[in-house]
Amino acid sequence: MRADGRSADALRPVEMLPGWTSTAAGSVLMKQGRTWVLATVSVEPRVPRWRVRSGRGWLTASYNLLPGATAVWTPRDRGGANGRTHEIERLVGRSLRAAIDVDRLPELTLHVDCDVLQADGGTRTAAVTAGWLALALALGPLGAAGRVPADLLCQQVAAVSVGIVDGRPMLDLSYDEDVRAETDMNAVMTHDGGFVELQGTAERRVAFSRADLDALVALADAGARSLMAVQTEVLDGVEPSPVRAALP
Amino acid sequence: MRADGRSADALRPVEMLPGWTSTAAGSVLMKQGRTWVLATVSVEPRVPRWRVRSGRGWLTASYNLLPGATAVWTPRDRGGANGRTHEIERLVGRSLRAAIDVDRLPELTLHVDCDVLQADGGTRTAAVTAGWLALALALGPLGAAGRVPADLLCQQVAAVSVGIVDGRPMLDLSYDEDVRAETDMNAVMTHDGGFVELQGTAERRVAFSRADLDALVALADAGARSLMAVQTEVLDGVEPSPVRAALP
Amino acid sequence: MRADGRSADALRPVEMLPGWTSTAAGSVLMKQGRTWVLATVSVEPRVPRWRVRSGRGWLTASYNLLPGATAVWTPRDRGGANGRTHEIERLVGRSLRAAIDVDRLPELTLHVDCDVLQADGGTRTAAVTAGWLALALALGPLGAAGRVPADLLCQQVAAVSVGIVDGRPMLDLSYDEDVRAETDMNAVMTHDGGFVELQGTAERRVAFSRADLDALVALADAGARSLMAVQTEVLDGVEPSPVRAALP
Amino acid sequence: MRADGRSADALRPVEMLPGWTSTAAGSVLMKQGRTWVLATVSVEPRVPRWRVRSGRGWLTASYNLLPGATAVWTPRDRGGANGRTHEIERLVGRSLRAAIDVDRLPELTLHVDCDVLQADGGTRTAAVTAGWLALALALGPLGAAGRVPADLLCQQVAAVSVGIVDGRPMLDLSYDEDVRAETDMNAVMTHDGGFVELQGTAERRVAFSRADLDALVALADAGARSLMAVQTEVLDGVEPSPVRAALP
Amino acid sequence: MRADGRSADALRPVEMLPGWTSTAAGSVLMKQGRTWVLATVSVEPRVPRWRVRSGRGWLTASYNLLPGATAVWTPRDRGGANGRTHEIERLVGRSLRAAIDVDRLPELTLHVDCDVLQADGGTRTAAVTAGWLALALALGPLGAAGRVPADLLCQQVAAVSVGIVDGRPMLDLSYDEDVRAETDMNAVMTHDGGFVELQGTAERRVAFSRADLDALVALADAGARSLMAVQTEVLDGVEPSPVRAALP
Amino acid sequence: MRADGRSADALRPVEMLPGWTSTAAGSVLMKQGRTWVLATVSVEPRVPRWRVRSGRGWLTASYNLLPGATAVWTPRDRGGANGRTHEIERLVGRSLRAAIDVDRLPELTLHVDCDVLQADGGTRTAAVTAGWLALALALGPLGAAGRVPADLLCQQVAAVSVGIVDGRPMLDLSYDEDVRAETDMNAVMTHDGGFVELQGTAERRVAFSRADLDALVALADAGARSLMAVQTEVLDGVEPSPVRAALP
Repeated sequence: MRADGRSADALRPVEMLPGWTSTAAGSVLMKQGRTWVLATVSVEPRVPRWRVRSGRGWLTASYNLLPGATAVWTPRDRGGANGRTHEIERLVGRSLRAAIDVDRLPELTLHVDCDVLQADGGTRTAAVTAGWLALALALGPLGAAGRVPADLLCQQVAAVSVGIVDGRPMLDLSYDEDVRAETDMNAVMTHDGGFVELQGTAERRVAFSRADLDALVALADAGARSLMAVQTEVLDGVEPSPVRAALP
Repeated sequence: MRADGRSADALRPVEMLPGWTSTAAGSVLMKQGRTWVLATVSVEPRVPRWRVRSGRGWLTASYNLLPGATAVWTPRDRGGANGRTHEIERLVGRSLRAAIDVDRLPELTLHVDCDVLQADGGTRTAAVTAGWLALALALGPLGAAGRVPADLLCQQVAAVSVGIVDGRPMLDLSYDEDVRAETDMNAVMTHDGGFVELQGTAERRVAFSRADLDALVALADAGARSLMAVQTEVLDGVEPSPVRAALP
Repeated sequence: MRADGRSADALRPVEMLPGWTSTAAGSVLMKQGRTWVLATVSVEPRVPRWRVRSGRGWLTASYNLLPGATAVWTPRDRGGANGRTHEIERLVGRSLRAAIDVDRLPELTLHVDCDVLQADGGTRTAAVTAGWLALALALGPLGAAGRVPADLLCQQVAAVSVGIVDGRPMLDLSYDEDVRAETDMNAVMTHDGGFVELQGTAERRVAFSRADLDALVALADAGARSLMAVQTEVLDGVEPSPVRAALP
Repeated sequence: MRADGRSADALRPVEMLPGWTSTAAGSVLMKQGRTWVLATVSVEPRVPRWRVRSGRGWLTASYNLLPGATAVWTPRDRGGANGRTHEIERLVGRSLRAAIDVDRLPELTLHVDCDVLQADGGTRTAAVTAGWLALALALGPLGAAGRVPADLLCQQVAAVSVGIVDGRPMLDLSYDEDVRAETDMNAVMTHDGGFVELQGTAERRVAFSRADLDALVALADAGARSLMAVQTEVLDGVEPSPVRAALP
Repeated sequence: MRADGRSADALRPVEMLPGWTSTAAGSVLMKQGRTWVLATVSVEPRVPRWRVRSGRGWLTASYNLLPGATAVWTPRDRGGANGRTHEIERLVGRSLRAAIDVDRLPELTLHVDCDVLQADGGTRTAAVTAGWLALALALGPLGAAGRVPADLLCQQVAAVSVGIVDGRPMLDLSYDEDVRAETDMNAVMTHDGGFVELQGTAERRVAFSRADLDALVALADAGARSLMAVQTEVLDGVEPSPVRAALP
Repeated sequence: MRADGRSADALRPVEMLPGWTSTAAGSVLMKQGRTWVLATVSVEPRVPRWRVRSGRGWLTASYNLLPGATAVWTPRDRGGANGRTHEIERLVGRSLRAAIDVDRLPELTLHVDCDVLQADGGTRTAAVTAGWLALALALGPLGAAGRVPADLLCQQVAAVSVGIVDGRPMLDLSYDEDVRAETDMNAVMTHDGGFVELQGTAERRVAFSRADLDALVALADAGARSLMAVQTEVLDGVEPSPVRAALP
């Protein structure tokens, strides 16, 4: 049994609150245990320099840890994003661009901004999962208003962390588990069990084996399916939902 | 009557949720109408370079607008705080240092970090008001644990915005009112009606008169008293409260 | 009596030397006691990005303390303006934009650059007062040459610092007085006694009262009138003076 | 057959030139087809701030693309490493820290600096492979001189890229193949077939399946073994080789 | 004859005003025609990181063009010194370190800060010449107070610009001449006719010959002697002058 | 005799390897003793902001020391080029712009990027010499393809360092000699013995005399002629060589 009483293959309690703030086009406050991420989607009528006058838009993601979100205070990224932040932002951006047909996006930028209000492990995967839901919530009205194609969203995406802790494969690591893990892996998956991203890292010189990889991938698959079920339930509660219809 | 039905001297509905997040030493989610500020207080066992080996600590404040907190998307401050952010951080920091006996703080830094989750005018004054409450909530346990003097907090502080809109002095401007205002003023006040900060700005070449100043100051005084009543009510609900006892 | 023999309501000796340098469109070396500020006004045939192709121009201000201007050496702002500099530049910029009808400025930028050659308190208010005079001096020839509307200048602006030192309200604080002050206030005023900016700060936890505010505002009003008299005298000595005519 | 005549499971021709430059403690020019990486290892008698006075050292890696290394000119990273560079430097650093017992490193920094002199795909994996060899070459003399423990190196590490191009899994992608790939994967492996890092990314919305993952991992395993054979051959040619002895 | 009536070998009128500001340890306003440079020398009781605990100090120089000092407005160096500024600061620093026995400086920093209040060519050489005088003025009292060795200053240094304009070698170029020059040369010289720095640059693809070099060097020698005569005259007027005595 | 057995007027062994890398338009690996510089020339179809829509292009140079190129590790220039780098880049850029008729360059940028793979003194002069050859090699095909005028190159340029070491003038200083030198001088010269740049610096307070200058300039002239002979030999080996024909 784990410190919080979970079995090795259990997710922490998950809550996704759609429309939590009202300023952005889409907004979700996601709680996964004590990891809380606020994801918002905003539309900016400009594109990065290399897309100007291309007739095509872009989706970009940002990630930020609030200074008080961790037990040890985190300074703000005022001197530029640090390496970890850059790495996460690139992961979230690639994952969410895989969910839409980005080449059919008109010349505007979709900003998916993820702020971690409270951190207890798994913040980057929560950012992907919450970001996808905020995106789906935003695309409904944007599609209805004709600002983007109605069927822009083409697949469902969610992410989980898995790892090997004290020699045992486990799903959805808390911060304490993550610190002790020998292997740490993040999987971004689609509704049909495909991988959008898979990133595994051996910690402390203990390389992981093919058998470890198989066990971790199986846990990730089950975890991602559960998270997608929650995403779907939220979307089903929002009316009318042109986006929901667009999904397989 | 104002767009939201308020009278000129009315605050928007105010809610202060203590301990909203659990990672920081103190935490408050404050909602003032649709302006939502999350203030956290964290303790860092280091001081700025100019205080090293002085035996004395420091209190510093930061302010951040989340990218999706405004209808028009706001880029993150990655290239360094901009002028407006700097100005607000200095205001919040001075205001909260006025609430404690900073020279009796031991050699550590109290970080008061304010993140605007949703913005509808008055974010800097909400940051002061929420920041003060988060500070008071943090100082209780910190004092009990002997990390800071038990009576470090020496006065109650809250802030409001006032302004002249369409020729009429008004309390607690929303964003739409703020944009139209001829004069914009922020007052940071203490429980005995003194001023910690008073900053008034004439917009669009319409200087404000002595009479305008008097009217605005009277509105601010009443507004700050109401906010302090809510702060006190929250503190009264937290047990045991060594901080509450320390206040006059 | 004050250290330099002044009464509480006296300004330090003021000198404003128009056209001190000849490269800029307008230039003033202002000496207020041992505080010396060189203000220049330059015209740049470009506008900030957000004004491009708007047909309208902008006025912006900068502020800089020379490294040797203070007894304790000040490093140059090479890593970006610091918080204090930002705050001052915003104050000076707002104050001088209040003096002109900025929407009638054609698509060019007026740069008002203030360099403190020697600092003894009150540098930001001296920057406003000298900056206004340099602006008025520049607008004369610019208006005559048809580069800006001849009547662009619409009000006279000057600024003073006041404060409470050892319990007594005083006008125009020197650096030594400023350091000891319980309250520090800057007022930017117009020729008819209106306020463009009013910024008061309580130092060291001593909030200031309504009565304090009244006393300080009265001192500021008198001080600003004296400074405007010097500005007017300088302008009267410059021939021909289309700007002087435009003022009330 | 591929554009350069290789079979799907073939590496490009590999050359590793040890001691190519003589200023650094270890140096390797590695050519993998037209991808050329110069890796050097330097010893700095200082550690990052968070390791000061810990009695322990650190290994850090950097990565840089020369401006003329690509057909399209690449500007230098003068404004700070960009996201891609950060991501690669973190990958290389983690991979090489896995090769040594970093906690037994005395209080100094080992810098592994990788410069891409010519780029044709697979630069990050070449940086790991060349970096490991430069590290092994440096640790020999450093161990002999008593500056680091003689048995600091504890496992052999090499990296390869694999991917799915036109539906077929392939080893060691060239730039042209990489651009067309549906899935792109980098594997950092040890001499006993374990994974230090595994990073797979689906491109253009085509998620990869479990079966794809299995095929790619098998290709990577074979490729990494071949690269390690070249590393071993180089080390065998260097006399005396305390490092070589230390490896399994 | 030149535009201002000078002969080819004539300096512009030179004025050096010692003690022009009173905050710094040494201060000179130097006017060379319409080029005005304010040089100040300040003492900071710290040294650069690489000199900490070496028991030895450092002399460093900075250079800054005020925004309104040129006919075309110059933005402030807020994003870091640009290449030209860096180049000039290095030149001025090396030139003034050549004037003192820097290894006998105790562990403090002498900052020589040069601000160009008005620019009409030759600002970098004026910075050296004015900087040297401000340094000599500062070292007198600093030596008398025992803060630096009394005989720290060991040679007199001044600098001039020379150039070839319309095929003719000329001394002390104004801005208009500098822009038209085929060759531009700066010489930093000592009282016995030695060179501390000599920097010549051919403009517009017209290389300069040995004969050109000889002619320019002769002009520079005469010009530097004249400037040193003015420096000496100023120092002779300051009583008591331990520095003056120390010079040959 | 010098440490490496050379006479005072001898260059170190020089090798220039044309086309060493194949990605850039021109490429040279130059070895001058143990100083190795890789110079590449790349074409970018954009110009700096101040040349946009001028119909004219620009040539710019960059310089970079690899971290492991020196015995003491050098951190990368991530926070912007430092002063020394800026100074060198400006020198190389000016020197190579003197070799071509830059006003006849069409609206594109020629980037000459110099990376020091190994440093043993004289890196900036090697960058000029290698940069010129890479430029000549690039202009051949670019001229043949009609992207630049065929006769754009108008003079041959090479650079050497000279200095006074232990009282003796010497050619082509190694790092150990450079550190001990009393005078250090860099000369950039043309095929007819003219100077494009001449920069001499006295080190450690020993000014250099007219006689020293004469001796150094004579050494530099001979050294530059030898280097140009090697450049010419390389160009003669490249067929067809429209550039070679264009030179006098």
